Amino acid sequence: MNLIEQTLATLRYILDSRAIVTGGAINPRHHTDWSHYGPTCPNVLLLPRTTEEVSKMLRICNTHKQPVVPQGGMTGLAGGSVPRAGDIALSLEHMAGIEEIDAAAATMTVLAGTRLETIQQAAAEAGFLFPLDLEARGSCQIGGNIATNAGGNSVIRYGMTRDQVLGLEVVLADGRVLNLMNKMIKNNTGYDLKQCFIGSEGTLGVITRAVLKLQPLPGHVTTAMCALPDYANAVQLLRALQKRIGTPQAYEVMWPAFYQIGVEWSGHAAPLPSDKPLYVLFESTGSGEALEALLADARGTGDVTDAVVAASPLQARQLWKVREATREFSARFSPLSFDLSLPMGEIDAFIQDCQQQLDSRFPGHHTLYFGHIDDSSLHVTIDLNSLPEPSPVDALNDLIYTAVGGRKGSVSAEHGIGALKRNYLHHSVTPEAMDVMRQLKQTFDPNGILNPGKVIA
Amino acid sequence: MNLIEQTLATLRYILDSRAIVTGGAINPRHHTDWSHYGPTCPNVLLLPRTTEEVSKMLRICNTHKQPVVPQGGMTGLAGGSVPRAGDIALSLEHMAGIEEIDAAAATMTVLAGTRLETIQQAAAEAGFLFPLDLEARGSCQIGGNIATNAGGNSVIRYGMTRDQVLGLEVVLADGRVLNLMNKMIKNNTGYDLKQCFIGSEGTLGVITRAVLKLQPLPGHVTTAMCALPDYANAVQLLRALQKRIGTPQAYEVMWPAFYQIGVEWSGHAAPLPSDKPLYVLFESTGSGEALEALLADARGTGDVTDAVVAASPLQARQLWKVREATREFSARFSPLSFDLSLPMGEIDAFIQDCQQQLDSRFPGHHTLYFGHIDDSSLHVTIDLNSLPEPSPVDALNDLIYTAVGGRKGSVSAEHGIGALKRNYLHHSVTPEAMDVMRQLKQTFDPNGILNPGKVIA
Repeated sequence: MNLIEQTLATLRYILDSRAIVTGGAINPRHHTDWSHYGPTCPNVLLLPRTTEEVSKMLRICNTHKQPVVPQGGMTGLAGGSVPRAGDIALSLEHMAGIEEIDAAAATMTVLAGTRLETIQQAAAEAGFLFPLDLEARGSCQIGGNIATNAGGNSVIRYGMTRDQVLGLEVVLADGRVLNLMNKMIKNNTGYDLKQCFIGSEGTLGVITRAVLKLQPLPGHVTTAMCALPDYANAVQLLRALQKRIGTPQAYEVMWPAFYQIGVEWSGHAAPLPSDKPLYVLFESTGSGEALEALLADARGTGDVTDAVVAASPLQARQLWKVREATREFSARFSPLSFDLSLPMGEIDAFIQDCQQQLDSRFPGHHTLYFGHIDDSSLHVTIDLNSLPEPSPVDALNDLIYTAVGGRKGSVSAEHGIGALKRNYLHHSVTPEAMDVMRQLKQTFDPNGILNPGKVIA
Repeated sequence: MNLIEQTLATLRYILDSRAIVTGGAINPRHHTDWSHYGPTCPNVLLLPRTTEEVSKMLRICNTHKQPVVPQGGMTGLAGGSVPRAGDIALSLEHMAGIEEIDAAAATMTVLAGTRLETIQQAAAEAGFLFPLDLEARGSCQIGGNIATNAGGNSVIRYGMTRDQVLGLEVVLADGRVLNLMNKMIKNNTGYDLKQCFIGSEGTLGVITRAVLKLQPLPGHVTTAMCALPDYANAVQLLRALQKRIGTPQAYEVMWPAFYQIGVEWSGHAAPLPSDKPLYVLFESTGSGEALEALLADARGTGDVTDAVVAASPLQARQLWKVREATREFSARFSPLSFDLSLPMGEIDAFIQDCQQQLDSRFPGHHTLYFGHIDDSSLHVTIDLNSLPEPSPVDALNDLIYTAVGGRKGSVSAEHGIGALKRNYLHHSVTPEAMDVMRQLKQTFDPNGILNPGKVIA
């Protein structure tokens, strides 16, 4: 028997046969994620129903030094959950469900395979907000959200997934179960071990359960869109909102080429003239009067040149339609998209860097920029259809990521490193830090069985 | 030459002589912290002025396997920075100063020895709030705040120190300098290594610089005090505040014995009758009208029985004076104080547990309770003068910490473990988690030179 046959024999001996799927019986959704990176059928798919089963599976794989790829909803964009030939995939999809909502503590205890949307809905029914929100909400699982420290739409106000997690249960590579479940905000009892696993993309342990922090439901939200003379005014307007009304629920800055496409595709009349240097769409809590007063002052100081405040939910949806042009990128473009972050004060200068270099090396390129800015993130999309064949993907990656490194930015704001960004990690991480990451990997997974080839080479 | 003489000889050969202090020339403030735990003069005091010097010092000590105790402002309450005989103390006090305030990014870059109050003032002068705040603000240093993940007064709204840190520079035990400086909120480039060092109490590395997150200055704040029929009403009132006005800046729940002492010592008339089951003091942003309306509704539902809203800053200070009875505990009591946290829904039941057991085993005990509750923390103070000599300190520790463990609470909400709480850590941390903490310690500090004997035995 070869390695995988030996492992499989032991798994079959120890586990319920329904937990083990092989060959053609493995659903193709386990072959790749939303990035469509190199689809590969895993040798075996494991479907545990309990933490104890996860523990047994990992102990067996560790004994046989058999690589394991943990899988959630397969909605990642960095290839982090894509198997290599010979890998065993371990999907948490049968470990789904809400174990408890503790209204007094404002916490929810969930199994790792629970879908994000299920959690959002259960929180709302209990009178709370679970603020993590991303477009994959209907498919992604909380275990994957935690393992990748997902960002999304509400980071400006509520922080990353890391900030929503109070406790974890994690199975280590050797099968040890680490109970870090906790409902408390203040808890300084030794090293905060859960932090090691959040954002480690399944390379240090398999997350099986979590305690999530719930937030109060926000009050009335007003949606508005403004045109501004310059990037510095977008920073000023945000600071004024924070001081006078509170941090907005969303603050989306759009550069003109993005805005123009967004209006064109929206099918509605342009909410603001299309020839302005910058646009921002935001959602503000607080009263309509407070927002009107603030916008009047911002017009007075010149921070805002034009503004429209949605008078109805329908009008708010029409404003959002402009920003949601991103949803049609794949259908209408051949998009090469970058998930970047930069120190907030560097974002506009970075865009000028990029435009200058793209203009000189790739004349005719069509590139769009939008970002949440206050959480430091900027999305850059280049339409490969605007460039001659063969698409210069590697050269574009190098150009953009080198520019990011030059301004001390991050080559991955929220999607993670996975398989796709390993080769660009050095633009954002020093060699010493890479060494320490390898030491951590060696400590938690000395046989290197957990998601090998991901995050660190 | 013995070990320390060899180490000292090498240090003297490599370093500026002003960086090395020995024997009687060492100021007694380096002997212990605010807990007064076993004052000990370190063998040598090192006073680096640069990260490079810290690196050289640790490399030399690591080569000679010489224990090193990192020291900040010496305001800790768990003995975490107290030397043992034979230790070398490494104080960051000469590495103080603000390197940069980046108003666009809302960040501040500081050296580890910078005092918290200096940072708060500089933030305010730049139009921002640095929300970390504790009574030691005038003496404590940000490096120590980060190393202990300090909590304090503003956690309910802004989180722990961990939530205020965007980037770190850390010197590892072997002298390697880890540059994790970062100004971005969204940054998923591999493992978030800084999390390992925050709250590790100087046992995994020495923090030398940090990038801090700044917040918008809060608007007008209204101070109010209420009497409530029951603990459940205090949770209800908090949720109503969060939904209708926003998370308060402070929310201090006082049980009757605490309130009565606070009023007596304040020297003012009681703001509310002294015979109520529970009191809460809070600071709310938002308009006075919104607060009055909310309190009227809370009286209607019975969540609040009496309320007083401060009509002036002077009256607000008088209300706070009741809560600040804690400042006089040491002068007027012989206090045995506990820094605990519990799931928010368990706090009242925990107090009943404690009172029942204390009443039966220590009749005549005088015990006071107050807590911030929404951040899960509860302070318990027993006046040892109320009990016969010799003081049953060990029995009281066992009673309280066992009760904490029984309700899945934490034996250290915010002060850390240091030397004083090591023996109680098992009430809050599983054996498997302790093992992993030891593995982390072994990874970062294989010779065990960094703050040995602290946090983990």
